[in-house]
Amino acid sequence: MPAATCCLPPSEQELYPEPQTFKVQPPAELADILEGYFRPGFFVGVCTVVMKMFACVQPRVAVFGQKDYQQQMILRRMVQQFALPIEIVAGETTRAENGLALSSRNGYLSESERAEAVHLSLALKAMATALKAGTTDIAALEAQAMKSLTARGWQPDYLVARRRSDLQLPAPGDALVVLGAAKIGATRLIDNLEV
Amino acid sequence: MPAATCCLPPSEQELYPEPQTFKVQPPAELADILEGYFRPGFFVGVCTVVMKMFACVQPRVAVFGQKDYQQQMILRRMVQQFALPIEIVAGETTRAENGLALSSRNGYLSESERAEAVHLSLALKAMATALKAGTTDIAALEAQAMKSLTARGWQPDYLVARRRSDLQLPAPGDALVVLGAAKIGATRLIDNLEV
Repeated sequence: MPAATCCLPPSEQELYPEPQTFKVQPPAELADILEGYFRPGFFVGVCTVVMKMFACVQPRVAVFGQKDYQQQMILRRMVQQFALPIEIVAGETTRAENGLALSSRNGYLSESERAEAVHLSLALKAMATALKAGTTDIAALEAQAMKSLTARGWQPDYLVARRRSDLQLPAPGDALVVLGAAKIGATRLIDNLEV
Repeated sequence: MPAATCCLPPSEQELYPEPQTFKVQPPAELADILEGYFRPGFFVGVCTVVMKMFACVQPRVAVFGQKDYQQQMILRRMVQQFALPIEIVAGETTRAENGLALSSRNGYLSESERAEAVHLSLALKAMATALKAGTTDIAALEAQAMKSLTARGWQPDYLVARRRSDLQLPAPGDALVVLGAAKIGATRLIDNLEV
């Protein structure tokens, strides 16, 4: 006997007929860095609502976009940690011809901002290229990327190279991913690139 | 494709192949009172392991003992809050002839402690009787119960009358439950009685 039923997508009233007081708490080392650092509590909300959606839908497979790299990693870990019988599949990032990662948020960009927006992915690409070429001073690389986006009028939150497996600071030989989040005007964009 | 498989009952190694870093966090107003006050973090552990067991077993119905009154209430709320398709059924407390609530913990009692142990349920019964008879000074009633068990050599954690619906302090007219936890020797026992 189902405890609740939902139509898809559920309305806010269906999903939260009362305030959500039980939460899924992901570990700080994954959830309080990068996006979680700049959006405190964000991944508690993500994990909680996804756990609830999973209970409503009981899917065998769930697709989450690779563009939300940290979110996907956290949800994969959540599924593993709670032994949920669900396979998480990565949805590849779709990009415009110039490389801009497609996102519903791009709809908030003015025409000139949209033209500028590709520079987030270009900055990440430059970092990836440098790392592939053997750059080892990651802190300097990150600082340079922050500086160059800032110089173009962005307000970057972070541009970092991290270990692909757990988003921690990389050790030599680790497989890497570069991740960035930055505001252009009032719109905050994120992107990433596996190196 | 299941993310994990368990045999029942699962071994600790099966249930926790790695440290459990994702937790289910119940709300403080339910989980940090009574048992949760005297056993900090207890209900985070209960909710987390039960959520995981539910994922392993995918039950339609789960029975939890009424003797763990607060635990059952919290798990009912968890099921509701996460829209889990599971029906929670209360298992009635089984009592020895003298009224002692049966519990695996009774095995830790010496013969003389076992004879004394019934006085926890007797204290709760006395509270219930007084409440049914119209006693309104709940604080005095609770203090008296604590005093009488202490005088018998118990170390009581709490003996309280609470609102049945949410275990908060009762208002006039609320349906009540009396709950108690106390140590006799090295063994901590709990019991409760709906008034």
